[in-house]
Amino acid sequence: MKKSFRKMMSQQSFAMNRLEAFSDGVFAIVITLLVLELRVPEVHDPAELVPGLKALLPKFVSFVVSFLYVTIYWINHHQLFHLIKRSNRGLFWLNSLFLMCLTFIPFPTALIGSYPQETAAVVFYGLAMLATAISFVLMKVYIVYETSLGEVKQPGPPVFYLAAGPFLYLAAVLLALVNTAFAIVIYLMIPVIYFFAGGIEE
Amino acid sequence: MKKSFRKMMSQQSFAMNRLEAFSDGVFAIVITLLVLELRVPEVHDPAELVPGLKALLPKFVSFVVSFLYVTIYWINHHQLFHLIKRSNRGLFWLNSLFLMCLTFIPFPTALIGSYPQETAAVVFYGLAMLATAISFVLMKVYIVYETSLGEVKQPGPPVFYLAAGPFLYLAAVLLALVNTAFAIVIYLMIPVIYFFAGGIEE
Amino acid sequence: MKKSFRKMMSQQSFAMNRLEAFSDGVFAIVITLLVLELRVPEVHDPAELVPGLKALLPKFVSFVVSFLYVTIYWINHHQLFHLIKRSNRGLFWLNSLFLMCLTFIPFPTALIGSYPQETAAVVFYGLAMLATAISFVLMKVYIVYETSLGEVKQPGPPVFYLAAGPFLYLAAVLLALVNTAFAIVIYLMIPVIYFFAGGIEE
Amino acid sequence: MKKSFRKMMSQQSFAMNRLEAFSDGVFAIVITLLVLELRVPEVHDPAELVPGLKALLPKFVSFVVSFLYVTIYWINHHQLFHLIKRSNRGLFWLNSLFLMCLTFIPFPTALIGSYPQETAAVVFYGLAMLATAISFVLMKVYIVYETSLGEVKQPGPPVFYLAAGPFLYLAAVLLALVNTAFAIVIYLMIPVIYFFAGGIEE
Repeated sequence: MKKSFRKMMSQQSFAMNRLEAFSDGVFAIVITLLVLELRVPEVHDPAELVPGLKALLPKFVSFVVSFLYVTIYWINHHQLFHLIKRSNRGLFWLNSLFLMCLTFIPFPTALIGSYPQETAAVVFYGLAMLATAISFVLMKVYIVYETSLGEVKQPGPPVFYLAAGPFLYLAAVLLALVNTAFAIVIYLMIPVIYFFAGGIEE
Repeated sequence: MKKSFRKMMSQQSFAMNRLEAFSDGVFAIVITLLVLELRVPEVHDPAELVPGLKALLPKFVSFVVSFLYVTIYWINHHQLFHLIKRSNRGLFWLNSLFLMCLTFIPFPTALIGSYPQETAAVVFYGLAMLATAISFVLMKVYIVYETSLGEVKQPGPPVFYLAAGPFLYLAAVLLALVNTAFAIVIYLMIPVIYFFAGGIEE
Repeated sequence: MKKSFRKMMSQQSFAMNRLEAFSDGVFAIVITLLVLELRVPEVHDPAELVPGLKALLPKFVSFVVSFLYVTIYWINHHQLFHLIKRSNRGLFWLNSLFLMCLTFIPFPTALIGSYPQETAAVVFYGLAMLATAISFVLMKVYIVYETSLGEVKQPGPPVFYLAAGPFLYLAAVLLALVNTAFAIVIYLMIPVIYFFAGGIEE
Repeated sequence: MKKSFRKMMSQQSFAMNRLEAFSDGVFAIVITLLVLELRVPEVHDPAELVPGLKALLPKFVSFVVSFLYVTIYWINHHQLFHLIKRSNRGLFWLNSLFLMCLTFIPFPTALIGSYPQETAAVVFYGLAMLATAISFVLMKVYIVYETSLGEVKQPGPPVFYLAAGPFLYLAAVLLALVNTAFAIVIYLMIPVIYFFAGGIEE
């Protein structure tokens, strides 16, 4: 049963360049839609405009952080797809699962930007990012174990890196239940960690 | 008269890659716009945030289901265009009709997410999906019968598959008039059916 | 003076494929954004949902008509860019002017969909479409007269076709001042006229 | 330390065409999203529709100006990427910083369109454009000094042009504090200046 499922998933080869171009399109759109959550404050007295803009600060921060997350996934997605020669049904569906999580990101971004001090919003953001990170790890693991995708051109990232993303988001979600500030610090640190870790990894 | 219409439609060859790239762009944008229908709940008392998010559950479900539908159409569209060598005016307009139905999908998705228990919303969703399915079948049939599009590289899908999509949506629409729950079960089952049927088909 | 301006415009050659790909991206996004003007009716009594959807009928019609206009411009844009071998600064800016009109289309579409019986909305829609048509004709004329863009691969469309679009929209705007129904009939007829005229033209 | 950071940034070469295609996608989406800030006026008395449209005039102007800015950046971005042969980590992140500023543009555009006479809005618009201009200059400077990106195919723009954009926006921000009209004149002049300066520069 399990074997026939795996066989089914290895059918239907897709042109890699089409799958990459389609994913790139989704990345570009998601990254650009984030700004739509920033709404101009509606004020009646001009004196309220500056306070109104200051009140948007959490939304500006969540815009920047989510922008960086999507950018980092774009790099990782490229490096991952660069490892393989062809695609199949299994990879297609795992990629679709990942893209679904990715296209969802503007919602938790708007939520945490609107309610940065509410546990529910901070946890929700973390869970959405955790789901995205897990869907990406699933793709990574599939690519390493599914030999039919063609020779892996260079060795994949070590196991440590595979689990790092989901682990950090899980930690943030759990800490958010104690104090949302802990989680927010982790959310802000993740792009910084990636930025420097990425250099060491090579 | 009919003959001259058919002749008119076979004029004006389009570059296949341009038509495919344009369609891919529309697919990527539609799939990413679905999230815009998810609006952050506006609550005044923090205690209302969790109930506010729970109330969005039907919208999350309709987001996921429509995402899967668009993804499935993307695969089918690729396989269909892979069968032919060139395009013509007739195929262009049938493809445009299909893309029009596709770009419309965010509206019925938002509608059924907002009113999941209203017959009108559940029927409207089904009718929109039925129109999309019919427009896709029209393209399929055109490709099989219009020999000027170049050799069909592999045999097309059997007639049974052609009618399966429209039939399921029609059944859902009719059942929704009796009980909306029946229709919703069908809507949820369609991606699952496709997922497994797609494997058998090969 | 005039001569040096023309010389300035003929500088800076752009890769045709980049310009085409960029324009195609804008076309795909505009065509997909049209749906965002369709908002789910907010009703408190379920019995109001069907009337609420019926009230959206003018918006559905304006969605379909604008979708067809953008699609027709996409075909025409392709055929136009197929005539030339290279691009220059002048063509780039005329193309940008056209794209600006194109990206504006969702606004007049929403306006006429919201106020289909108001002269101001019907005239505004016509003026926006007139501007788009004129910007397209300017590109066509430039391509025919600017020999530095490379040999025109096939003879351009006759002068009659050049003026047909702007003339029809101008007529609609003027008739709208008498009776909006006349203008709306013209708006609905234009895609039909194009559909059949396009076949004769070849 | 500084040296090892620079070394780290020169790792990880990216396919230029992927980076360009991704940036082009973001450009096309930003330019098309600007229209979403134009909302149809909600009037109850038909006689209010024309005044309602006239009240949108500042939004139409800010739409046109921001459209021109994004278009000008698109040309400059192409010319810049045309100078080099390959990409690296440093260029990727500077490009991402620029794209983040670019995707943010619809917000200040909506803000100045809503409050064209408020100092806060006019200053905010200028600051957002200043940030975008600086991020672009950083990329330019990096490309000139980072020899590992491949031979610079043609000499880069003179230093004067590098500083022109940021200088003009900075001047506008400072003048806005005195009188917003001065800043708005500069905002309107920048596309005109570019249009003519671009020709002289060649």
